[in-house]
Amino acid sequence: MQWRELPAIYLEDPGSPVQRSSYLIELHTDDGGSYDVVSDASSPAARECCAQQSSARHNWEMNYQEAAIYLQEGENNDKFFTHPKNAKALAAYLFAHNHLFYLMELSTALLLLLLSLCEAPAVPMLRLGIFVHATLELFALIVVVFELSMKMRWLGFQTFIRHKRTMVKTCVLLVQFIEAIVVLVRQTSHVRITRALRCIFLVDCRYCGAVRRNLRQIFQSLPPFIDILLLLLFFMVIFAILGFYLFSPNHSDPYFNTLENSLVNLFVLLTTSNFPDVMMPSYARNPWSCVFFIVYLSIELYFIMNLLLAVVFDTFNDIEKRKFKSLLLHKRTAIQHAYRLLVTKQRPSGISFKHFEGLLRFYKPRMCARERYLTFKALNQSNTPLVSLKDFYNFYEVVGLKWKAKRNREHWFDDLPRTAFLIFKGINILVKSRVFQYTMYTVVAVNGIWILVETFMLQGGNFFSRNVPWSYIVFLTIYGVELLLKTTGLGPVEYLSSGWNLFDFSVTLFAFLGLMALAFNMEPFYFIVVLRPLQLLRLFKLKKRYRNVLDTMFELFPRMASLGLTLLIFYYCFAIVGMEFFAGVVYPNCCNTSTVADSYRWVNHTVGNKTVVEEGYYYLNNFDNILNSFVTLFELTVVNDWYIIMEGVTSQTTHWSRLYFMIFYIVTMVVMTIIVAFILDAFVFRMNYTRKNQDSEEDNGIVLEKEISKEEVIGIIELYKRTSAATETAQLQKIVLQMDKYGQMSTVFLGRRSRTKSDLSMKMYEEEIQEWYEEHSRKEESQPPVQEAASAPSSSLKPLSLRQRSQTVI
Amino acid sequence: MQWRELPAIYLEDPGSPVQRSSYLIELHTDDGGSYDVVSDASSPAARECCAQQSSARHNWEMNYQEAAIYLQEGENNDKFFTHPKNAKALAAYLFAHNHLFYLMELSTALLLLLLSLCEAPAVPMLRLGIFVHATLELFALIVVVFELSMKMRWLGFQTFIRHKRTMVKTCVLLVQFIEAIVVLVRQTSHVRITRALRCIFLVDCRYCGAVRRNLRQIFQSLPPFIDILLLLLFFMVIFAILGFYLFSPNHSDPYFNTLENSLVNLFVLLTTSNFPDVMMPSYARNPWSCVFFIVYLSIELYFIMNLLLAVVFDTFNDIEKRKFKSLLLHKRTAIQHAYRLLVTKQRPSGISFKHFEGLLRFYKPRMCARERYLTFKALNQSNTPLVSLKDFYNFYEVVGLKWKAKRNREHWFDDLPRTAFLIFKGINILVKSRVFQYTMYTVVAVNGIWILVETFMLQGGNFFSRNVPWSYIVFLTIYGVELLLKTTGLGPVEYLSSGWNLFDFSVTLFAFLGLMALAFNMEPFYFIVVLRPLQLLRLFKLKKRYRNVLDTMFELFPRMASLGLTLLIFYYCFAIVGMEFFAGVVYPNCCNTSTVADSYRWVNHTVGNKTVVEEGYYYLNNFDNILNSFVTLFELTVVNDWYIIMEGVTSQTTHWSRLYFMIFYIVTMVVMTIIVAFILDAFVFRMNYTRKNQDSEEDNGIVLEKEISKEEVIGIIELYKRTSAATETAQLQKIVLQMDKYGQMSTVFLGRRSRTKSDLSMKMYEEEIQEWYEEHSRKEESQPPVQEAASAPSSSLKPLSLRQRSQTVI
Repeated sequence: MQWRELPAIYLEDPGSPVQRSSYLIELHTDDGGSYDVVSDASSPAARECCAQQSSARHNWEMNYQEAAIYLQEGENNDKFFTHPKNAKALAAYLFAHNHLFYLMELSTALLLLLLSLCEAPAVPMLRLGIFVHATLELFALIVVVFELSMKMRWLGFQTFIRHKRTMVKTCVLLVQFIEAIVVLVRQTSHVRITRALRCIFLVDCRYCGAVRRNLRQIFQSLPPFIDILLLLLFFMVIFAILGFYLFSPNHSDPYFNTLENSLVNLFVLLTTSNFPDVMMPSYARNPWSCVFFIVYLSIELYFIMNLLLAVVFDTFNDIEKRKFKSLLLHKRTAIQHAYRLLVTKQRPSGISFKHFEGLLRFYKPRMCARERYLTFKALNQSNTPLVSLKDFYNFYEVVGLKWKAKRNREHWFDDLPRTAFLIFKGINILVKSRVFQYTMYTVVAVNGIWILVETFMLQGGNFFSRNVPWSYIVFLTIYGVELLLKTTGLGPVEYLSSGWNLFDFSVTLFAFLGLMALAFNMEPFYFIVVLRPLQLLRLFKLKKRYRNVLDTMFELFPRMASLGLTLLIFYYCFAIVGMEFFAGVVYPNCCNTSTVADSYRWVNHTVGNKTVVEEGYYYLNNFDNILNSFVTLFELTVVNDWYIIMEGVTSQTTHWSRLYFMIFYIVTMVVMTIIVAFILDAFVFRMNYTRKNQDSEEDNGIVLEKEISKEEVIGIIELYKRTSAATETAQLQKIVLQMDKYGQMSTVFLGRRSRTKSDLSMKMYEEEIQEWYEEHSRKEESQPPVQEAASAPSSSLKPLSLRQRSQTVI
Repeated sequence: MQWRELPAIYLEDPGSPVQRSSYLIELHTDDGGSYDVVSDASSPAARECCAQQSSARHNWEMNYQEAAIYLQEGENNDKFFTHPKNAKALAAYLFAHNHLFYLMELSTALLLLLLSLCEAPAVPMLRLGIFVHATLELFALIVVVFELSMKMRWLGFQTFIRHKRTMVKTCVLLVQFIEAIVVLVRQTSHVRITRALRCIFLVDCRYCGAVRRNLRQIFQSLPPFIDILLLLLFFMVIFAILGFYLFSPNHSDPYFNTLENSLVNLFVLLTTSNFPDVMMPSYARNPWSCVFFIVYLSIELYFIMNLLLAVVFDTFNDIEKRKFKSLLLHKRTAIQHAYRLLVTKQRPSGISFKHFEGLLRFYKPRMCARERYLTFKALNQSNTPLVSLKDFYNFYEVVGLKWKAKRNREHWFDDLPRTAFLIFKGINILVKSRVFQYTMYTVVAVNGIWILVETFMLQGGNFFSRNVPWSYIVFLTIYGVELLLKTTGLGPVEYLSSGWNLFDFSVTLFAFLGLMALAFNMEPFYFIVVLRPLQLLRLFKLKKRYRNVLDTMFELFPRMASLGLTLLIFYYCFAIVGMEFFAGVVYPNCCNTSTVADSYRWVNHTVGNKTVVEEGYYYLNNFDNILNSFVTLFELTVVNDWYIIMEGVTSQTTHWSRLYFMIFYIVTMVVMTIIVAFILDAFVFRMNYTRKNQDSEEDNGIVLEKEISKEEVIGIIELYKRTSAATETAQLQKIVLQMDKYGQMSTVFLGRRSRTKSDLSMKMYEEEIQEWYEEHSRKEESQPPVQEAASAPSSSLKPLSLRQRSQTVI
């Protein structure tokens, strides 16, 4: 490929696009005649017209913007029916789609959620007057109204009504608004369970897309889940009846004396929370009664509960695949849309750099000129200067790459004088040697054993004496030296580019801070000292399986975090309901009449001379404010001894309170099962992937290599000069200078990004993906008026989408 | 295909086999010259010699037997190196391979295991004198010695030594023998932990193949399991150190006052068994300390424990597939071995019916002549009268089919007179109608609600009054009528062939027995009455998912049972160890100094006039005899409150007792994880299978249809007449008579068997299986001297296996 002839192509005249941006079409049809004139911009006569030239440029700018929006919609999985339809909608769309707006959305939602810290059963330190928090709430709600009206302007009333999530949000907003006003007027808070619905404002945030996906997944897994749950409950009822008949004649058995008790206790038994106890009275009377409990637990706990997991896991697997497929096809459609907006009439077979660059300016404004060009080159697989649709399909895979010039120097110290070079080279070799690594592992292991023995020797009392233990200093010195050697030997940049080194670095830093805390006797920071054992985690680098597991762990982390957030949202709802109903019902010695009296007891004995405090502590697990509620709900999630909390509350309120706890158990069971299914799925998926690609063992993410010659850079500079983009020109000139300095005719750049789940899925479903594509394009063919144009450039003059059918495009 | 010419072929002369049975070879080489003569049996001169004719027949009988043994080895996954090598070994092999011998093995093993009911800490009712049980033990051990010597005779000393399982068994036997004698001599039982090893006698039984497979699977899953377990323990240690530093300054916190306590309590916390309690003292002092516990549980319980499941599940999946592959290839090799023993020199391209029949006589002696011929026909895919190797590969799939003549009559009552026919036809239509079915569902549902309400109304007391409640009689009458209608409408055979009907039948029968029990006031059977709600299970027929789930449940049952048995074997080992160390250590009020004193308390208060018994009941969870131990171990398996049992025992013995409980927890965790992985795998596998075969929704197992003409039957009769097999001839003549009666020229037979996991796997791995086969035969080709012959009949004259290489086969 001869790059020398290319610059001319980059500088080619914009030409006129095959497909006009929909905003533009609207604008121009409003203007009447000018539309036709512009469409002829490529005729020599028209070219001379400077005004029309600028109009053509405006024309292109609009196309770039709409293409960028399409690509963003494809990336975010936004349905195309919310695509802004005209210039006015575009303005609203742009207003509502930037990080400032997103942040506003998020902070309003958080403010609303955090208000529950200060409302009625408030955290003591944060209590606010009713007037204050109601005003704050009203303010936040008004902001939400503003956001919604922006959204309406962009979507139009029709689409706004059709968008379910937004409609629900509007309804909740209305209710909240009325309630907030009522609170302000009455100056007292009524039973506001609807506060639990505040979560929807958070869920609707742009940044909480992952949470929405999780919720969708949970709802999709519900039908099979409920089926199995019914089976579970059915057996529970049968066993409850059986248990009642068998054990109620035994009057010393309080667990089965009524059918209700029998049911409740078998429900609790399902969680194993009351296990040996519930069996004991009948077991004491007749040893064979244990058969009843063993059969019950075997069927319910060991079989049906696992079946539940299996069913959810199976559904989860299926959904994951379907989701991946639909997202892939959605992205493909988005790319087709964008492509059609970027090809010119003269060259319908591809996108020139000029237009690609225009797109990227809108799609990724932060990208510098060099990166834009490299992205273009990476996409371009053919020998022509145009990116064809087939190449353009890789857009999402390539656009995320971070480009860096490939180092000519192997080490950071290559430029240093000879002596220094040799020293650093020596350190480099030392640091990279196996002996050094294993020595360090040994040191870490010794340190670990040391800490264990040291801690074992201490028996309570004042650990943090004024004297810093010498072992601490010795080990820290060794780690410090290692850190120093590694940094100098590898160069700080390379050193910190590895996650493990970063971990080492931060742990050593913490240890140093801990030493400081010890030396200067700063009490509040003493917990840093005890983080020392974390150093031992380095030992797990030794084995491949651990590296695999820990890598998977880090990969899973974002998704886990979003699942955690989802769980927190459920917690919030239940916490609000719990506070409204159960705030202040449990306190020390509250439940002396119930079966769980012991756990709530608080007695001050005086035995001899000493005062012995007998504490049950369970009164601490209450719903007195939102923080306490969260802890209580976590305890309910862990399930052990949850019936004590339930019975405590029940004894102070009504039997119906149990419903709250049981429903909470079932909800957390759903979420937890999903979490387990997710971890299982992700892990098994990755393992299968590793098994499939055993040859390419070291996984450094996606790497692409591209070479740029000096002529090309100069060509691009020319291009930018014509559009008078000063900063871009300066940037590019720097590259030319660099090349001149080293006397090179070209530079190699490396594009790098980490591997995502989507990449793995692409590889796993390789064969099926082609089928999906074919099926997809067949489906499109069978619906003639819809977006066919793109896949066959020759037909690109057809009307494009349903809503544009009324417009004739040349 | 012209069957008329076939009879001649069935009657063909035996000819001489390509490959002689190895027993025969040995016999004849002992005789010296006769070997060569026999090998020429096919020459005209030799044919005239009557003595040699009978020798040829003997020759074939041996071949049939060895082929049958090969096929059995293939089926049971016995390695071929244990194949009996000569006529003497064959006799021993046959002695040790029949159900009588297997039953002896099993009963000896069970006797040894059951002895622990009567030994030292015996179940009170079953206590035996030391002399008695030691003699019994010695007797059982002598039987085991006899079994082992039989095995040795068959395997030969070399192979015996090489067979690991048998060697372990021998060592255990030796130890047990010595100990039994020591007990007899000393007349007192010493600490006999080795009794735990008795399980190996059970595991080694032929009938416990499934248990052995499970154990192998558990051991194969161990390495990755242990890796993750170490990670788990590592975090536990780190958190224990951290917890010790953080919470030991709080003197009211008994959980973290020493490092040992800290470790133990975090181990227990891993099982959530002490959850809110362990947090409470520190939480009461500083609410933020809950963060420590939340982080710990999130990492350990919700992440690493799930990772453990994921890793085991992944390994499990992998092992299942590899196991299936190796079994498939093993079977294939077995078939090749057998094939080579059955083809004749004249017709090396296939097996004639004559020889196939000979094989089946040894392989399945119970099969009747008709079934043998049908199996042959089912195998034979080509138009020739011979079964080629390719056809013969399906042997295992076809040989299990149960053959039945296809009914000419649609209903059982077709032969009845007109009036009766119409009545029964009417009942048949009624019973099969949707209205009838849904009416019955409604009745069942009403009955369910009735039972629930009735039970709810009763509040304790005497349920089983002398008056049988009328509702009971009404519903039972309805069920009885339904049962009667169905049996008459469908015919008893068809009615009982459905699992669901069988279930209905037995539940109704139980209900009837319950009614009897009520009517005649038989106390011990009153529990039957409470089984009534099981009728409700019928409602789950309504939905497809439940049918799927319940079908899977029934399919899983055999495997689940074997997993349960595996768990019981672990229980047995731990029970023996537990009894030896902890028998009699816990009793009422034993642990008043420990932290769990309340649970072991037994106090007789006198409050006012009443005697109030305050019971902790936990002293019932002891190791005083093997039955109690099993219940205690089940409680430990369920995990809830297991630390109370652990602490109780620990307070009476030493700290080291905790090791026993912790190891038990880890072992059950392994087994339980395997069980979960198994259920997950089986279920997901089945779901995938259903998804793959959505068209063939109704799954009736494997069905094959074959037609037999009268000429064929007569031909076979001729064949049997020549070998003077009277019973077979009579059987076949019955078929001819039947055909004559209905004036048919042929009868259609249906071969049916239920679908096994192997069939499903065959379908799932369809594509891969071909690859395996190719890889397998390629591997064989690369090892020239080993069993290649079979796959290419032309090369069948090559020497066959390593051990036969010294023999020249013509």
